[in-house]
Amino acid sequence: MTADIALAKPAAAAVSAAIDELAAIFGNRLVTSQAVRQQHGNTVTWIVNQPPDAVVYPQSTEEVQQIVRICARHAMPIIAFGTGSSLEGHVNAPLGGVSIDFRDMNKLVKVHAEDLDCVVQPGITRKALNEQLRDSGLFFPIDPGADASLGGMAATRASGTNAVRYGTMKDNVLSLKVVLANGEVIDTARRAKKTSAGYDLTRLMVGSEGTLGIITELTLRLSGIPEAISGGRCPFPTVEAACNAAIMTIQAGIPVARIELLDALQVRALNLASKTELPETTLLLMEFHGTAASVAEQSERFGEIAEELGGGPFVWTTRPEERTKLWEARHNAAMSNFTLRPGAAMIATDVCVPISRLAECVTATQADIAETGILAPIVGHVGDGNFHLTLLIDMNDPGEVERAKALSKRLVERALAMDGTSTGEHGIGQGKMKYMVAEHGAAVVAVMASIKRALDPQNILNPGKIIALS
Amino acid sequence: MTADIALAKPAAAAVSAAIDELAAIFGNRLVTSQAVRQQHGNTVTWIVNQPPDAVVYPQSTEEVQQIVRICARHAMPIIAFGTGSSLEGHVNAPLGGVSIDFRDMNKLVKVHAEDLDCVVQPGITRKALNEQLRDSGLFFPIDPGADASLGGMAATRASGTNAVRYGTMKDNVLSLKVVLANGEVIDTARRAKKTSAGYDLTRLMVGSEGTLGIITELTLRLSGIPEAISGGRCPFPTVEAACNAAIMTIQAGIPVARIELLDALQVRALNLASKTELPETTLLLMEFHGTAASVAEQSERFGEIAEELGGGPFVWTTRPEERTKLWEARHNAAMSNFTLRPGAAMIATDVCVPISRLAECVTATQADIAETGILAPIVGHVGDGNFHLTLLIDMNDPGEVERAKALSKRLVERALAMDGTSTGEHGIGQGKMKYMVAEHGAAVVAVMASIKRALDPQNILNPGKIIALS
Repeated sequence: MTADIALAKPAAAAVSAAIDELAAIFGNRLVTSQAVRQQHGNTVTWIVNQPPDAVVYPQSTEEVQQIVRICARHAMPIIAFGTGSSLEGHVNAPLGGVSIDFRDMNKLVKVHAEDLDCVVQPGITRKALNEQLRDSGLFFPIDPGADASLGGMAATRASGTNAVRYGTMKDNVLSLKVVLANGEVIDTARRAKKTSAGYDLTRLMVGSEGTLGIITELTLRLSGIPEAISGGRCPFPTVEAACNAAIMTIQAGIPVARIELLDALQVRALNLASKTELPETTLLLMEFHGTAASVAEQSERFGEIAEELGGGPFVWTTRPEERTKLWEARHNAAMSNFTLRPGAAMIATDVCVPISRLAECVTATQADIAETGILAPIVGHVGDGNFHLTLLIDMNDPGEVERAKALSKRLVERALAMDGTSTGEHGIGQGKMKYMVAEHGAAVVAVMASIKRALDPQNILNPGKIIALS
Repeated sequence: MTADIALAKPAAAAVSAAIDELAAIFGNRLVTSQAVRQQHGNTVTWIVNQPPDAVVYPQSTEEVQQIVRICARHAMPIIAFGTGSSLEGHVNAPLGGVSIDFRDMNKLVKVHAEDLDCVVQPGITRKALNEQLRDSGLFFPIDPGADASLGGMAATRASGTNAVRYGTMKDNVLSLKVVLANGEVIDTARRAKKTSAGYDLTRLMVGSEGTLGIITELTLRLSGIPEAISGGRCPFPTVEAACNAAIMTIQAGIPVARIELLDALQVRALNLASKTELPETTLLLMEFHGTAASVAEQSERFGEIAEELGGGPFVWTTRPEERTKLWEARHNAAMSNFTLRPGAAMIATDVCVPISRLAECVTATQADIAETGILAPIVGHVGDGNFHLTLLIDMNDPGEVERAKALSKRLVERALAMDGTSTGEHGIGQGKMKYMVAEHGAAVVAVMASIKRALDPQNILNPGKIIALS
């Protein structure tokens, strides 16, 4: 097995033939203006924008099928597009092709309240979904920073602050409707909560970043909105003490819902941007879900653990408005960083290590940041061993850009050396392809490439992502 | 894409050449006696025993690699063997070949207590693992009925009574070391708790029943042994009331650890076999994990739900000896059934449906059982919508065998008609291949076949399982 996959731009004649065929069907839902094409190239990362040749807005699975069949006939690349909030160049079109924008496929199709599941179209965003679910007493727990689309979240195997309790997208997708590279439509599983009937195509599609199929519908697992929620913040003298508190909390079986680390620099950014008055030191933000009695018990026990480790006081509350303020500040963490350096470009990256190595990894990274002289606040989903750097960069200073790139590379190498991964939740896209062999070994990358070739022999589904190219 | 895969028995000369090469390396750890070969054919189901040509007992990943390389050179089938407790003919050797028995690879290699994970060899059984973990305060929660090997549990995507809270094998395997069909060794993931770095090969291997690779090491996610456990039993007037109690419990966010349905016939078998005095009606056995205060709260709230639905009283306790007695009786359910019809053969089957359809599915199945005149107690993991039939059959009565087969077929059809799956946790093996297209559609089966061909072009890894053959 090899990792070689042909990567060729379609000929200009094929491109215009495909676009003509699509235009005949989709009319003004097929757009080729430069502004719209640019919007659908990568916009959030520092990776250069590579716009598609056209953008199309389907309204049904059948229309997606039509698009894929036309593109397949002309060997045109196809890139699924949700909200464009992915961070590693996932929606870029290095070979041109057609971007399928799911703007118009954004419905909550059905709620099965007794089964704790729902069926959605890929373009619905997580906030819109939870808004529409509210009356059912249910919610969808996965919350990446951005208000991403559910299709994109599945495609990148997203997670967020709730993952320590509710898992990631891989744990909360029951089934996917997928259009394959040949235009066939499959459902990856039945709606039953578990199955042993053959290969797990659901989990194979989750995290495949649009390279194995186009998701046109998702059946999602939901959770009951907790009866009571407590939340609060707890300062710690060191990153190590905070990480140890996280470890002891989980080992003690306290079913913590959120356990978020902020370093002192990140707290300062939050205070500046959100007018909060958080202590500017290493901080854990906590949340507990359950009954009134159980969240009180969990909160008290966490407070004891924190104190034992020299942290505290743990200031917590069950009052919604105070909790909301705290977590809104946290969710604005990325954007708040601009207050630290107005006008800077923001480069977000993440790694994930076994939690026993987290303190060491964060501390070494802080030292590296200090030495490199880059402004880079840290937030971490410490229950998972996952943390993020936001590098604030002057893109007009080539030296600084180089230093930032080198810092990011050392971060990944540090994580890999600790049995960690190059990305806990952002994905590979274009940005982290260069680390795939170092992380997995050539044999694993070859297996992935052989699966890619089996499902997409023409390499038309989001080419130039995940798998190293010849 | 097609589902065609060549299925051919190797020539006699190839078989003896491969066995000679293996014997030269493994000496008396290569066995060809008829008794041992027969033991490694299928023994637990009614599917006919198809013994391998030889059985080999490796002691390391490197030895498994040697076996696979020799077999690959001679196109010899390779069947991974744990304890032989799978139920659908998974370890049968329809084309002969070499059975790799992991008897000697049964070590707990390493416990990472802070990370709540451990590394094991595939031959360790779930009871042996938990025995060795006890001092760490951690446990591995997945508990299929048999004392299965962890390698086999991963290969069949097993689950059991704890799945409603702790998930199935897909949720509790962090990484696998796998020998591929070409003899290469891969690790499917790093030890980090989550990752978005490429295709999810871990979940692809889990449930692939030895058809995509041979598992030689597993990194497992562990859970803290709960501080307190409460357990008990609750009678219900109908299956529907019991299922509704399960639904309301889960909707209320009560983090129930076990919620097991027994029908009246199954309770009678338990009472006969285990000298228990359980009320011989529809029964739920419950277990709650947490702190002393929280398990009491959970138990009380469940009791209220049961009462609201006409069930109860819910008799519960936190005393270990009483709980153990109750759950030992439950775990002996399958074996207890022989007391209902001594000398009968036992055919176990399972399906899984959305929980909202469970009562309807179980009730219709009970009516079907009564009409067919077969003795078939029912147990269900009702939190998952999963239930089992144990058909007690006189295999010497061809008419009865035919009626039992027809009953099993109708059970699967009923589950599929309710958006369920042909197997929630037993797997496909040989026994349920005939339902794959009905469950998934031809396009999905073709995708699975294309993945199989990509990873195992010679079709030497457990041929004749999962995928329909030409």
